[in-house]
Amino acid sequence: MLLEHFAQYISEHKKQLVEKILNERTRQITVVLEDIYQSQNASAAVRTCECMGIQDVHIIENSTTYEVNKYVLKGSYKWENLIRYKQSAVNNTEVCFKQLKDQGYTLYATDPKDENMSVYEIDPCANKVAFIFGNELEGLSAYALTHADHRVKIPMYGFTESLNISASVAICLSSALVKLKQSENQYSLSAEEKEHLRLLWYRKMVKRPDILEKEFLRLNP
Amino acid sequence: MLLEHFAQYISEHKKQLVEKILNERTRQITVVLEDIYQSQNASAAVRTCECMGIQDVHIIENSTTYEVNKYVLKGSYKWENLIRYKQSAVNNTEVCFKQLKDQGYTLYATDPKDENMSVYEIDPCANKVAFIFGNELEGLSAYALTHADHRVKIPMYGFTESLNISASVAICLSSALVKLKQSENQYSLSAEEKEHLRLLWYRKMVKRPDILEKEFLRLNP
Repeated sequence: MLLEHFAQYISEHKKQLVEKILNERTRQITVVLEDIYQSQNASAAVRTCECMGIQDVHIIENSTTYEVNKYVLKGSYKWENLIRYKQSAVNNTEVCFKQLKDQGYTLYATDPKDENMSVYEIDPCANKVAFIFGNELEGLSAYALTHADHRVKIPMYGFTESLNISASVAICLSSALVKLKQSENQYSLSAEEKEHLRLLWYRKMVKRPDILEKEFLRLNP
Repeated sequence: MLLEHFAQYISEHKKQLVEKILNERTRQITVVLEDIYQSQNASAAVRTCECMGIQDVHIIENSTTYEVNKYVLKGSYKWENLIRYKQSAVNNTEVCFKQLKDQGYTLYATDPKDENMSVYEIDPCANKVAFIFGNELEGLSAYALTHADHRVKIPMYGFTESLNISASVAICLSSALVKLKQSENQYSLSAEEKEHLRLLWYRKMVKRPDILEKEFLRLNP
């Protein structure tokens, strides 16, 4: 197996770390970023997702382009699945939402209006949760607000009525994760998903995976 | 009263907003920033505090200087008490810690080490909580780590072992505030503290408060 071939070049310590992190990884919660203007903000959100064990981040680029900000990301993007929606002449938000609904997600559009439900009321054990965050100036698009299943607010108590995206993502994820982790972690990845990720991660950990892969194919024709 | 003199120049709507926000304000929780390098990070933390109703932010400047980043702050600093510790030739962390302990705070040094207690275990109703955050590169100083009452971690599950400061502050505050707000809000400011803040805020809301104050003194010699 190619995995075993890579494994020879990875320390025991790192392999144990991979297993520990794989066991905490989840797709029960995901994050959607719609047209974030500043790449540092989108990158900070990706980093928070990685820290929190959220495997997939959906990046919608209708009017913006996501550029990797390596300083902010601190390498976190290497371990994440970044799913990008950036076709021209279509509503990429619609494409993304359709895909998430097909995967069984309930879509929560974050929006600070008073009348919205509180993010703390969400039960991520009852259904798969997609948190959707809009851009820094205008928030979410009208399409996102009307086509999400729910609108949720983060309760705020000050004159300043908006948290930055990094803070918002952190609050939504941490409050949902506390509930998930208390529930005996039934929400980890399947054996098959883990197998797939393990190979992907091993490939990122070894030097020159392309050469190792050729070598493997030569030895196992 | 000077307050009433200012009040004539403030709309009913704004006065109601002030009362609403005053009622949610708390000193039961406070935030300490020790030597944050990047002013945008310290400013983002101040903004998060304001959004969350945390009145006091303590800024320690042993090796750094806090500069207001107005773009990030979005005006939030106007409503906050920023208490700065920046004497030369003293350990400003020591000065700050002594002051907080005199005020009855339990000091929680945030530090990502595995063996530390989780931030979610803190009960902010049982004691006044000061969350202490260190700088982006080196974390908290040795003094802060050894002289705080507890070290707390934010549980993380990924390869990337650090959340940015904005995310960390948001998680600590939101998790503590959920508990405070569920407890029938016994942790609001005293009538005297509210009175003091109301005057400060009114002064920020009127145009040319200096002229209005002179006028008041002329009419009420």
